[in-house]
Amino acid sequence: MNYTQSNGLPEYITLSEYLFHRLKQLNIETIFGLPGAFNTALIDKLYTVLNLRWAGNTNELNAAYATDGYSRLKGLGCLVTTFGVGELSAVNGIAGSYAEHVGILHVVGMPPTSAQTKQLLLHHTLGNGDYNVYSRMASEITANTRLISDTELCAEHVDQSICTAWIQQKPVYLGIPINLNDTPVESKKLNYALNIQAPTNNPVVENEVIEQILNKIYKAKNPVIISDACVTRHRLIKQTQEFCERTKFPVFATPMSKGSIDESLMSFGGVFMGSISSPDVREVVDFADVLIVIGCLLSDFNTSSFHFAYKTKDNVLIYPTCVKLKNSTYPDLYIESLMKALLFALDESRITYTATHPQRMIVPRSELPNRHSLRQEWIWNQISHWFREGDIIITETGTSSFGINQTKFPHGSSGISQPLWGSVGYSLGACLGASFALQELKLNQLNPFPSRVILFVGDGAFQLTVQELSTIIRWGLTPYIFILNNQGYSVDRFLHHRSNASYYDIQSWDYLRLLPTFGATSYETKKVVTVGDFLQMIHDPGFSKDDKIRLLEIMLPPMDVPQALMDKWLTEQETKKRTGSESDISTPSSQISIKRIKPENLMLADNDI
Amino acid sequence: MNYTQSNGLPEYITLSEYLFHRLKQLNIETIFGLPGAFNTALIDKLYTVLNLRWAGNTNELNAAYATDGYSRLKGLGCLVTTFGVGELSAVNGIAGSYAEHVGILHVVGMPPTSAQTKQLLLHHTLGNGDYNVYSRMASEITANTRLISDTELCAEHVDQSICTAWIQQKPVYLGIPINLNDTPVESKKLNYALNIQAPTNNPVVENEVIEQILNKIYKAKNPVIISDACVTRHRLIKQTQEFCERTKFPVFATPMSKGSIDESLMSFGGVFMGSISSPDVREVVDFADVLIVIGCLLSDFNTSSFHFAYKTKDNVLIYPTCVKLKNSTYPDLYIESLMKALLFALDESRITYTATHPQRMIVPRSELPNRHSLRQEWIWNQISHWFREGDIIITETGTSSFGINQTKFPHGSSGISQPLWGSVGYSLGACLGASFALQELKLNQLNPFPSRVILFVGDGAFQLTVQELSTIIRWGLTPYIFILNNQGYSVDRFLHHRSNASYYDIQSWDYLRLLPTFGATSYETKKVVTVGDFLQMIHDPGFSKDDKIRLLEIMLPPMDVPQALMDKWLTEQETKKRTGSESDISTPSSQISIKRIKPENLMLADNDI
Repeated sequence: MNYTQSNGLPEYITLSEYLFHRLKQLNIETIFGLPGAFNTALIDKLYTVLNLRWAGNTNELNAAYATDGYSRLKGLGCLVTTFGVGELSAVNGIAGSYAEHVGILHVVGMPPTSAQTKQLLLHHTLGNGDYNVYSRMASEITANTRLISDTELCAEHVDQSICTAWIQQKPVYLGIPINLNDTPVESKKLNYALNIQAPTNNPVVENEVIEQILNKIYKAKNPVIISDACVTRHRLIKQTQEFCERTKFPVFATPMSKGSIDESLMSFGGVFMGSISSPDVREVVDFADVLIVIGCLLSDFNTSSFHFAYKTKDNVLIYPTCVKLKNSTYPDLYIESLMKALLFALDESRITYTATHPQRMIVPRSELPNRHSLRQEWIWNQISHWFREGDIIITETGTSSFGINQTKFPHGSSGISQPLWGSVGYSLGACLGASFALQELKLNQLNPFPSRVILFVGDGAFQLTVQELSTIIRWGLTPYIFILNNQGYSVDRFLHHRSNASYYDIQSWDYLRLLPTFGATSYETKKVVTVGDFLQMIHDPGFSKDDKIRLLEIMLPPMDVPQALMDKWLTEQETKKRTGSESDISTPSSQISIKRIKPENLMLADNDI
Repeated sequence: MNYTQSNGLPEYITLSEYLFHRLKQLNIETIFGLPGAFNTALIDKLYTVLNLRWAGNTNELNAAYATDGYSRLKGLGCLVTTFGVGELSAVNGIAGSYAEHVGILHVVGMPPTSAQTKQLLLHHTLGNGDYNVYSRMASEITANTRLISDTELCAEHVDQSICTAWIQQKPVYLGIPINLNDTPVESKKLNYALNIQAPTNNPVVENEVIEQILNKIYKAKNPVIISDACVTRHRLIKQTQEFCERTKFPVFATPMSKGSIDESLMSFGGVFMGSISSPDVREVVDFADVLIVIGCLLSDFNTSSFHFAYKTKDNVLIYPTCVKLKNSTYPDLYIESLMKALLFALDESRITYTATHPQRMIVPRSELPNRHSLRQEWIWNQISHWFREGDIIITETGTSSFGINQTKFPHGSSGISQPLWGSVGYSLGACLGASFALQELKLNQLNPFPSRVILFVGDGAFQLTVQELSTIIRWGLTPYIFILNNQGYSVDRFLHHRSNASYYDIQSWDYLRLLPTFGATSYETKKVVTVGDFLQMIHDPGFSKDDKIRLLEIMLPPMDVPQALMDKWLTEQETKKRTGSESDISTPSSQISIKRIKPENLMLADNDI
């Protein structure tokens, strides 16, 4: 029985219904956004599709973040906003999905075509009769921008928009004028599968590239594989895993791709973070004779905190749509097809490299007395032991995005973060999206693990998007929300070496009251102050079962940061001392408080409880 | 003593300092925004200027709304964000200021020029090396977009950006690369006043127009003046007031300009809202023989709720930079100069119109028993009597933006709302900005009234930007926040006639807990359920003194709306009944609940407490 029959659809359905059925065919079961004058007629139709739900976010930026988080687990997310005010509030979220390669269909409910033609002065316009301003802006940050206008081809145009977002893993903008929502579409079109296969490659070019890659693989003495962000985005986790297992080459993740490769692999070596990687990791990656990056997003990248670049000259960079070998580029090679061909052609008996696994990642169980106050270094080491198979671990741009790289993810777990775009506040929205996605994967028995959604977010970042907690509560979702309370924007305070800049301070909130204030009835909140508190919490079996939403306020000193940041800072200070320039830290007291928490001194530190 | 001497400035200061001194010279004393990697070196310099403060908002969209609210009282607001993530989060706020004619200087801290030239892949970029994407987007919604690059002329460029925003009352984008923050600027440049005078007009053209306007004025039998939004934006309140007093013509406000004209004037007739104006107002405005619109923003405007257009054919539309007489347009006529010349040339002895003041606005004190539950119609009539001279009254896009038009503002009060752009959630941010502005005006003894800041916001809208309460608390500001709790997006639910659409529902919050949760220590909260509760509250003299922040939760039925909306709906239903089409309201029970609150039936309604 075909889709139309099995869903009992009439011969003609509306364009809106068609759109939502198409999304449902891709297992999209939650639509994000807010209602507005120009999109409610569209949203109305969502309720006609079985098992499709309207998330009902608290604002559009949060909704865009949620759509992104959802897409990272399900391959595509759909955001519906209204013309002008709605779509523009989401711009930063969409740009983030563009930068980080996340597939988003952004549907914008637009004024009627007649108003556009007559340049009527409607609300949500700039008062100049120009209805294309916002879609022009969107075209800068989307793979494709389309305004539906053709009633004959509108179904095909919807299909194209969905497929572009899915295949390219980028946002696509789809504007639907309110008068075209009900355009009749033959429902039998739904019986033809969406063409979401990436294009196949020119076999001549593909063979040429594969031959060269294999030559490098067979001859390599110190090869390294990097599993990068597009491995997850382009659904290549299985293929990458197979490639690692068959070559036995050491494999590393990047900050953008942590969770893309199974960290229980013998050959997994940790996270390569450029200049602030651990010395063991740098040694292996920087001195590799052949470096194979699968799902490459960027080979070179600067943040205010670290510089990330591959030093090895004999690189094989496999991007989503091209391959770079040393200094040559092969365009129009799609990674899905290429990886399949590469695995087919690979003859592991010809590999000369002998696996040594010297860099296997070990997470130390550091010891601290129970009444000691908490430190990031200690927490990040401990928390690895609490993670469970299949967990979805989300970190905010801030100290947690560094700390997470020293943890070890169990088999089947995923990581969500935004190191390239780095929009503060992203993670709580992403947490909502991931929680919806996980709930659906479990209900549809597509998730073999006892997965939970676990969020680490600093107090500063948390404030930007706090109201999305309300949506999490409203839907009875049950993530763990660890708020790292270090009284402000600590990562910036630390990195910019301005410990006393008051603009990094934030208003002190009573975080534990937030859940009941936003209407939660079944929940757990806890303020975690000491090592003992923390250990008792994670060793409580009841705590580990995600049967309710939990908000854990982790109390940390304002200038306490994870090891990676600390190392960078210490190195810089050392350099400055040698070259005679002054330390950036302005007051002696803040210097002391930083030095006191150097991990090697941790046991010597005053007990400051 | 000149500015440089009186502020003890050295011969050279940095560009950042120069910028902030220039803003201070225009009485800008609060800078809005959030810190980020590319703007903190800039923000650091703000602290070198006496009496300049950094608001420290909770997110960029809220900060943009706050800047807008501040600018509406002080003539200009300054927002500082960081490259990419920061500026893009503010886009919807900036677009709103553009649509509504509000002067904003949007300063964006950018990556160093060297990174831009080398197309380095930095965080907050799209990963394509294009550093101009965001400023291109900004150019669609700003009067001017400038990236500082010339170290010789940078001071002049800063001046031009500030003056453009001030004169045009539109947002201006000013990007400053981080390496140019400290560009040395001769401090003596500060001794030359900024050229913020609007250009003078060609006297020949100006005289021709004024002669024609005066002819119309002298001959008019049923003239009407509309004081529109640009009267406040372009600082013409005094001139408009004088024009009204000398002509004695009936004067009306629009929803965008309520508060721009003194409502205690004998000739003030209320608010013209196009199709949903009260019959008395429509009769006078629609049948005027000469209609003079001062500070015209739009002469024609549609929202989902009403159509607004001037029917009179003999219009004098005075826009900020042009005049339209009937069908002819006179470009390049600046309103400031024109109004001055008009007032100079006006000879009131030649006016033939005789004032009758038939339409003077009267606010009824409707009576309801104390134990009756609250109704919008009753509240909006009552609240007029509680308003005080100089109050700043802010309303959200929603039921309150309609209700407010049936209130009467006392002498010296101002109104803030966003009827054209209509971005839900705007009002709480604007409330923060207005509270800062009022505090400064009072401290500088520029405000002769015992003004307070009073916000009316629906529960749905409030959720979008709730965290900005935290900034209000942090600064000890003391607005009144009336939350009209009607369980969701009532105005949409009503206007789109879908009383049962679940996407208009929102999560139920415990609003009274918000202030302490966000760290307030001195505050008052109250849930106001009955007429008696409300009367007791507004008659308590202690309550009327704005000595602390107050959050009042006003409990209202979900489908209760102000009179203006009700009228429109009833008319539509009547038309449909006559033409035989079905009622849009889907369930009989919701029809009943709406009918029950028709004002004339109010006393007959069940007492539903």
